[in-house]
Amino acid sequence: MSNGSYAFVRGEIIPIGDAFLHISDLSIQRGYGIFDFFKVSNGHAFFLNDYLDRFYHSAAVMRLEVPYVPRDLRTIIQQLIRQNDMPESGVKMILTGGYSRDGYQPEQPNLIITQQPLKLPASEQIEKGIKVITYEYVRDFPLAKTINYTMGIWLSKMVAEKGASDVLYCKDGVVSEFPRCNFFIVKKDGSVATPDKNILRGVTRMKILSLAAKHHRSESGKITLDDVRNAKEAFLTSTTKRIVPIVQIDDMIIGDGKPGPVTLSLLNHLINLEKSDLRDSPL
Amino acid sequence: MSNGSYAFVRGEIIPIGDAFLHISDLSIQRGYGIFDFFKVSNGHAFFLNDYLDRFYHSAAVMRLEVPYVPRDLRTIIQQLIRQNDMPESGVKMILTGGYSRDGYQPEQPNLIITQQPLKLPASEQIEKGIKVITYEYVRDFPLAKTINYTMGIWLSKMVAEKGASDVLYCKDGVVSEFPRCNFFIVKKDGSVATPDKNILRGVTRMKILSLAAKHHRSESGKITLDDVRNAKEAFLTSTTKRIVPIVQIDDMIIGDGKPGPVTLSLLNHLINLEKSDLRDSPL
Repeated sequence: MSNGSYAFVRGEIIPIGDAFLHISDLSIQRGYGIFDFFKVSNGHAFFLNDYLDRFYHSAAVMRLEVPYVPRDLRTIIQQLIRQNDMPESGVKMILTGGYSRDGYQPEQPNLIITQQPLKLPASEQIEKGIKVITYEYVRDFPLAKTINYTMGIWLSKMVAEKGASDVLYCKDGVVSEFPRCNFFIVKKDGSVATPDKNILRGVTRMKILSLAAKHHRSESGKITLDDVRNAKEAFLTSTTKRIVPIVQIDDMIIGDGKPGPVTLSLLNHLINLEKSDLRDSPL
Repeated sequence: MSNGSYAFVRGEIIPIGDAFLHISDLSIQRGYGIFDFFKVSNGHAFFLNDYLDRFYHSAAVMRLEVPYVPRDLRTIIQQLIRQNDMPESGVKMILTGGYSRDGYQPEQPNLIITQQPLKLPASEQIEKGIKVITYEYVRDFPLAKTINYTMGIWLSKMVAEKGASDVLYCKDGVVSEFPRCNFFIVKKDGSVATPDKNILRGVTRMKILSLAAKHHRSESGKITLDDVRNAKEAFLTSTTKRIVPIVQIDDMIIGDGKPGPVTLSLLNHLINLEKSDLRDSPL
């Protein structure tokens, strides 16, 4: 990984080249852990409260104890950001099941924090929109941000082979989420809708729901493939990608096959919201 | 983990205390990897061909390339067993998605091999049988031995709270497997049956199917909870546990609530098969 020069591992900030875990760690033995990821711009962490809330929530769902209270975790994050001194970047916190004596039961969790350059979506993706495919699947623990991406990674090959950019999980005709993004449609009546079951509660998803409620109309609830077929616009949201318009899902062309005005207006509102977050709470 | 003194990590045999992976490894970042596990007794690896076959199969399913041909992997295993010099033990091979530059795409896989003391089931479990509970679930990649045990580990608490020893996955009334064991019943007509869908192809399962075909009658196919309710006996199989009789599933008492004669006879046949494997192919 092209990381910042320093990482926080098991209690200390160390050079990234020295950042190792013993092979008894339950992430290596059994893929057991949770994580979260937020954006940083020149020392400012966007919507940090929201991400920390979700990190502690994921840990609680998976019965792992974060070894720091939020206040101390913030201090660690700030110190790491200062030492790495990267401009536009993302910070990833991983909490594993710890060094397990029997290779199965979680013990004292291990916390690691890294910082990496941000990979924004290509401007072509925003201008032209992307094609995605669907796949019949629901994650095991949709409400927790676990490290288990076995299915998402395994599907990468199929996504590439079909000339798509991502894969949308559905089950019995009901859509839910992407491996790393949330899904939205703009209905014929102009309302902005997103699934509310079997999904990760994305921070960007939440921001978009609020922005849509203010500027358009918004709802979260069941969305079927038929709803998608009848939609005027579709897009995905994520921390790194913000908003990317979707113009094709499998063989279905969405709306007129171009990024729609509501999608692009929400992207602008989101960028403005980030600016005001930066203004209101600089590091 | 209480391991042997040496482990094989990324190309060399090193002291277990030095056995680390960099945090960019895809097992830590995304829980991506496969593994396998076989028993060793005084330098002899039981049914090694079967386990190696499955290891390479799991790797292929998950699109990871084992960095050695089977012949060379055998040599490494033999050398590790010799250096550790443990009597009754198990050897675990883990193949991860490797050090990933973007934290998502697999790269050159990392192979680690450890050896640990064997934990046989308590004799009380064989004499009295165990209670298990059921849970509605099917693993994402049943045919591959991935490292993803998020669900199994998460369910440990429920298993303990219900005074059970393990949890049997079912879906819509059809049973499949335990997180780490296969499931068998003995039907009223004396035939030995095991599920054939949504399961890991256990090596011990395969051995038991052969032994049952020789000494009783055997079949693999769909098994419903109704079939279980009508069964005379039930048991689980695994590499470490061999056979453990099951006398209760949720509130259902199996047969007369005691380990049955077919179960115990198969356990004896399995122990004899291990002895003949040891005799026919000493290290």
